Amino acid sequence: MPRAYVIGIMGPGEKATDADLARAGKLGTLIAKKGWITLTGGRTSGVMEAALIGAKKAGGQTIGILSTKDKKDAAEAADIVIVTGLNSGRNIINVLTSDVVVACGVEAGTASEISFAIKEKKPTILLTDKQAAITFFRELGPDVVKIANSPEEVIQTIELVLTDV
Amino acid sequence: MPRAYVIGIMGPGEKATDADLARAGKLGTLIAKKGWITLTGGRTSGVMEAALIGAKKAGGQTIGILSTKDKKDAAEAADIVIVTGLNSGRNIINVLTSDVVVACGVEAGTASEISFAIKEKKPTILLTDKQAAITFFRELGPDVVKIANSPEEVIQTIELVLTDV
Amino acid sequence: MPRAYVIGIMGPGEKATDADLARAGKLGTLIAKKGWITLTGGRTSGVMEAALIGAKKAGGQTIGILSTKDKKDAAEAADIVIVTGLNSGRNIINVLTSDVVVACGVEAGTASEISFAIKEKKPTILLTDKQAAITFFRELGPDVVKIANSPEEVIQTIELVLTDV
Amino acid sequence: MPRAYVIGIMGPGEKATDADLARAGKLGTLIAKKGWITLTGGRTSGVMEAALIGAKKAGGQTIGILSTKDKKDAAEAADIVIVTGLNSGRNIINVLTSDVVVACGVEAGTASEISFAIKEKKPTILLTDKQAAITFFRELGPDVVKIANSPEEVIQTIELVLTDV
Repeated sequence: MPRAYVIGIMGPGEKATDADLARAGKLGTLIAKKGWITLTGGRTSGVMEAALIGAKKAGGQTIGILSTKDKKDAAEAADIVIVTGLNSGRNIINVLTSDVVVACGVEAGTASEISFAIKEKKPTILLTDKQAAITFFRELGPDVVKIANSPEEVIQTIELVLTDV
Repeated sequence: MPRAYVIGIMGPGEKATDADLARAGKLGTLIAKKGWITLTGGRTSGVMEAALIGAKKAGGQTIGILSTKDKKDAAEAADIVIVTGLNSGRNIINVLTSDVVVACGVEAGTASEISFAIKEKKPTILLTDKQAAITFFRELGPDVVKIANSPEEVIQTIELVLTDV
Repeated sequence: MPRAYVIGIMGPGEKATDADLARAGKLGTLIAKKGWITLTGGRTSGVMEAALIGAKKAGGQTIGILSTKDKKDAAEAADIVIVTGLNSGRNIINVLTSDVVVACGVEAGTASEISFAIKEKKPTILLTDKQAAITFFRELGPDVVKIANSPEEVIQTIELVLTDV
Repeated sequence: MPRAYVIGIMGPGEKATDADLARAGKLGTLIAKKGWITLTGGRTSGVMEAALIGAKKAGGQTIGILSTKDKKDAAEAADIVIVTGLNSGRNIINVLTSDVVVACGVEAGTASEISFAIKEKKPTILLTDKQAAITFFRELGPDVVKIANSPEEVIQTIELVLTDV
């Protein structure tokens, strides 16, 4: 049996907006319904936690990759917790482990992950209201960056790109 | 529902002896039967792969944490593949992610992992014929290092230490 | 005697434009004349190498932080070579080690470093013709991102921000 | 002009014995007199700091590679401070950056570095009273591990192995 696809949901922690959180939760749920695995940074905060909770609601499998060195920092909704202690050195692992990277909102940590995804030629989907991010990253990675306007559009885009993975 | 325990099986890759491989396979199987998760370095080689195959035979869940940056390097028996691209920088992640670290044979990479486990005060079990390793690591980490003489004894020791985790 | 400041020059490797390379060389020279240390990714390519060569021409000190695990990959102009073997896991080290981060041109790896610099609240100076990058990063890190139009302006900006470091 | 050799001095931090500290200081001084660079983990503690201070006394150049993310954690005697924030993920960098690795005393962190040095086939010199460490590591890395009984013997051994680097 082939391995299930891993969809990485990146996005703001403490600075997440209500829209970011609602979209992250919905994304987790929709990913779970497709039988894919939801991966995030794993902490009990923002988009990371919301996406994991959304996925668990629909019975999906979840992975949290912590930047800290204490498993207790993980959100309860993370089934598999990877503990790195690498601080920001962890971000590249989120990207390399994901088959598709989705940015649900954009702050500095997220921007590092989108940049790495483009560098690694990973399919990368942006779900954000920040036009400057869309313009910049589309120019930086024209071959891999896709734009979506809703969680549902993210899922449709994932289905399209997964045929090429 | 609490998270299942993660048991990390460390050991030689290409240099694994037949005894190492047989023990690794048995360990994976016994870990799976307990409902624990088997974690290894994930490559298609030596103790890493044997333990994962052993776990899958008994229907267990498995994690492989790759040092390379290509998911295709993972053993088929790894359910969850974490891709780091960190080369030896990956080893500390194996240790921090495991609730108990088991060395099934000892070569240089394994020795780095046992050393990290002692540093992090993780329960660490040695299953090896190398007396020099046993003497050294028992002296280095008297509070956390346990010795086992068979896969069955490893499991008994894990059960003892997990009550303290 | 206080330690000399470390100025990190980030920028494209193989994809560097002639303008990027000319600016990087000039930046290295001007940094050296100020008595500061020039830090780059250390490889024999693009902005990394041009900045180091520029610094050595003016008798400055240089650091190269390699993503690979072989010291032989380092540019000859790197006095101090740090070998990480971490692939993209190296990028955060470039940022944390620099007192000021300068982007001389922007591609995906550089964008990860600018993002980390903003996350870590490091003074960050952009010297690029890419308007989309300027707009995005200025919005992402309004407190730390400065724009310069020439190597000389970069140096003036460094002098201003170093009074606050 | 060829680059100066980098000699990495690894050893206990807070747990360093008086003998470890005296040897580390002497090692730093002797390394400096040879014109080599002294590299350590960079913190204000134990063998790391003693070796750097010893090197500076003799006018040598020094590098400290921090596991933390704050340059202020560095010993004053570190000329070049590399900031990683990688916690134990930093240890492999100490090894890969050094042309020769010297263990001045052995605790768990040091043991991880000796193990990595053996894995990477780096010349590795042990200066320790711990017989179990000597026996184990000599068996683990017969081609690269050398034993010395004094700082002066370490220097003689480095001179021998550097002809092969």
